[in-house]
Amino acid sequence: MSFEVIQRDKNTRARLGRLKTFHGEVNTPVFMPVGTQGAVKTLSPEEVEEVGAEIILSNTYHLFLRPGQEIIKKGGGLHRFIGWDKPILTDSGGYQVFSLARLRKIEEDGIYFNSHIDGSQYFFTPELVMEVQKALGSDIIMPLDICLGYGASYWETKEALEITLRWLKRSIDYKKNNNMETQLLFGIIQGGFYRELRKEAVERMLDMELPGFALGGISVGEPKDKMYEITDYTVSLLPEEKPRYLMGVGAPEDLVMGVSMGIDMFDCVLPTRLARHGVFYTKTGRRNIKNAQYKEDFSPLEEDCDCYTCRRFTKAYIRHLFLQHETFSYRLLTIHNLRFLFRLMEDVRRSIREGRLEEFKKEFLTQYLANDRENRLEKEEVWNRLLI
Amino acid sequence: MSFEVIQRDKNTRARLGRLKTFHGEVNTPVFMPVGTQGAVKTLSPEEVEEVGAEIILSNTYHLFLRPGQEIIKKGGGLHRFIGWDKPILTDSGGYQVFSLARLRKIEEDGIYFNSHIDGSQYFFTPELVMEVQKALGSDIIMPLDICLGYGASYWETKEALEITLRWLKRSIDYKKNNNMETQLLFGIIQGGFYRELRKEAVERMLDMELPGFALGGISVGEPKDKMYEITDYTVSLLPEEKPRYLMGVGAPEDLVMGVSMGIDMFDCVLPTRLARHGVFYTKTGRRNIKNAQYKEDFSPLEEDCDCYTCRRFTKAYIRHLFLQHETFSYRLLTIHNLRFLFRLMEDVRRSIREGRLEEFKKEFLTQYLANDRENRLEKEEVWNRLLI
Repeated sequence: MSFEVIQRDKNTRARLGRLKTFHGEVNTPVFMPVGTQGAVKTLSPEEVEEVGAEIILSNTYHLFLRPGQEIIKKGGGLHRFIGWDKPILTDSGGYQVFSLARLRKIEEDGIYFNSHIDGSQYFFTPELVMEVQKALGSDIIMPLDICLGYGASYWETKEALEITLRWLKRSIDYKKNNNMETQLLFGIIQGGFYRELRKEAVERMLDMELPGFALGGISVGEPKDKMYEITDYTVSLLPEEKPRYLMGVGAPEDLVMGVSMGIDMFDCVLPTRLARHGVFYTKTGRRNIKNAQYKEDFSPLEEDCDCYTCRRFTKAYIRHLFLQHETFSYRLLTIHNLRFLFRLMEDVRRSIREGRLEEFKKEFLTQYLANDRENRLEKEEVWNRLLI
Repeated sequence: MSFEVIQRDKNTRARLGRLKTFHGEVNTPVFMPVGTQGAVKTLSPEEVEEVGAEIILSNTYHLFLRPGQEIIKKGGGLHRFIGWDKPILTDSGGYQVFSLARLRKIEEDGIYFNSHIDGSQYFFTPELVMEVQKALGSDIIMPLDICLGYGASYWETKEALEITLRWLKRSIDYKKNNNMETQLLFGIIQGGFYRELRKEAVERMLDMELPGFALGGISVGEPKDKMYEITDYTVSLLPEEKPRYLMGVGAPEDLVMGVSMGIDMFDCVLPTRLARHGVFYTKTGRRNIKNAQYKEDFSPLEEDCDCYTCRRFTKAYIRHLFLQHETFSYRLLTIHNLRFLFRLMEDVRRSIREGRLEEFKKEFLTQYLANDRENRLEKEEVWNRLLI
């Protein structure tokens, strides 16, 4: 048994859990920082650990293209290659093939795509994606899936779901036949924003003995209410005893909402990407360090934050470094943003433990002014081009 | 007395010394990493300390333009603003005005120049440069000077020297009248590559009671032999009891050569700048991490190096990160390059202590293949445009 629910919240579907992996345990609900190329951008592994990370996510698609799984395997596997000995989850590359690469063709056997780096053509099959993740040696692995944007038609979504389910079976078979006992293969639930399809997906996955369920095809350009609605509905169909992972979602308000819907795991590039654009989180919402109001502000990014950045530096200094394109400022903002999310998750877990998550949620969402628009527009843009 | 010679080498002019500043002592010969904008590029203050730095250099010109000395003063001075409580040396901005800004006009009173950032016009006087450094609160400060490139004529050089000497007097006067007792004002020796002018400069500076002498106008596009020759000659004119600082010089071979000529202090952007171009130091010379030979090289940058980078990561991983433009790789290479220089300086100091610097120098220079060409061509380019 790789997952254990330790405590349930009485008013929501939130729960405290513990996920056991080959490289150690993870306390859920958990946020996973993203290390796309095998490094959480701008940070050392020690810094990632210091902000509170227990598990990181890395991208199969990117590592497959550069440096290639063979080099990582020769280097002793992904953990050793990147100097991180705690759990790692790798995605399947499905999301990137659809959102980043130039997609060529989906066939029953797999997906033809052109690399976003140099345009060279590749063919991903469920088996290849499993083979890559075997070489990487990540603790939690994902099967190849078809990920559609918001607005895909019912029939398109249904067809994609059927293929995704057949690919899942092939992934399970590959894993069984290739000595991958130390790796946990989650199933990815697709079905777009059609309840009927989500339900069908879950029902057909229930007897596959999967150690966890990932909710895919969410945060693909839809409005927030649609996202919450389909997440809430999908989780309601899932068995209590398995971990649930909401892929690619991790804005502060989404973490709180997601946990209360029963989500156990999250990942998102937002905290690290926003940092490189000067954005930092505070309890009342996002701020941008470029703002002139911080020119002579000698206080930390957030008054009661315990992160390295806030313990050591002022807004005025970070602003100066950022405006001069000093990469140290990206690191400082990244550390703060990640620490902000990990403190938020600590608060969330404590609230569940003390049976007052509803209260905490209300408090947090009242204070925190969510700024979703920018992010949603960007996602819409990415996904809309697939609808043309 | 701010400087003390502790031990002299019997075969060369090298010496061990101790320089006392308001923010602590520095063991010489010493290399000073450059924090142009108030941060050693890509590093935290803790990392700068960990590689072995006892003092850093920062640039008056850059800090004057951004964020401006007033903000730094309001933030509690440069040490507090940047989170570094050990000694700081600031240059005068003279070098940058000549090499970086668009120079408009030199007058008896000062220099008109246009900012390299946005072209706006400024006027540097010796007094303003002192005022800025007073606001910064750096431990060792420099007077405004006129810095010419290699190839400047005798008369041009002589005229520049005369102005530089008059500006030095004005700087000394300003310091006396403005409560700057905790700051050490060094004199900058100009005179180009004309022995006669260097001699005149030194002679006229000897009775000014300066706490240290900086050799300026060196490493401005000249061949190495000219650089060594004029350095050696100039040092031979200087009093034993004062520290000597060779400005802007810090290639590994130059550190060893410079120390044996009697230089006590060095600064250079090379180790940090080269790192951002993928270059790393080894005992046998420079290497570039982009090189295909490192693709599957799972050994550290240098086998017996004790730096964080070499203790934790392989060439294959650093190469992967570098090729993917991950800024963490710039940090890793910067740490190694600085540590390489600090270990070199530790070896140099130990050799002086043990009376075998000549031996060490021979050994090191035999092993280390100096690659000066690239750097020299770049300097030539910068300085040649001033000759047109």
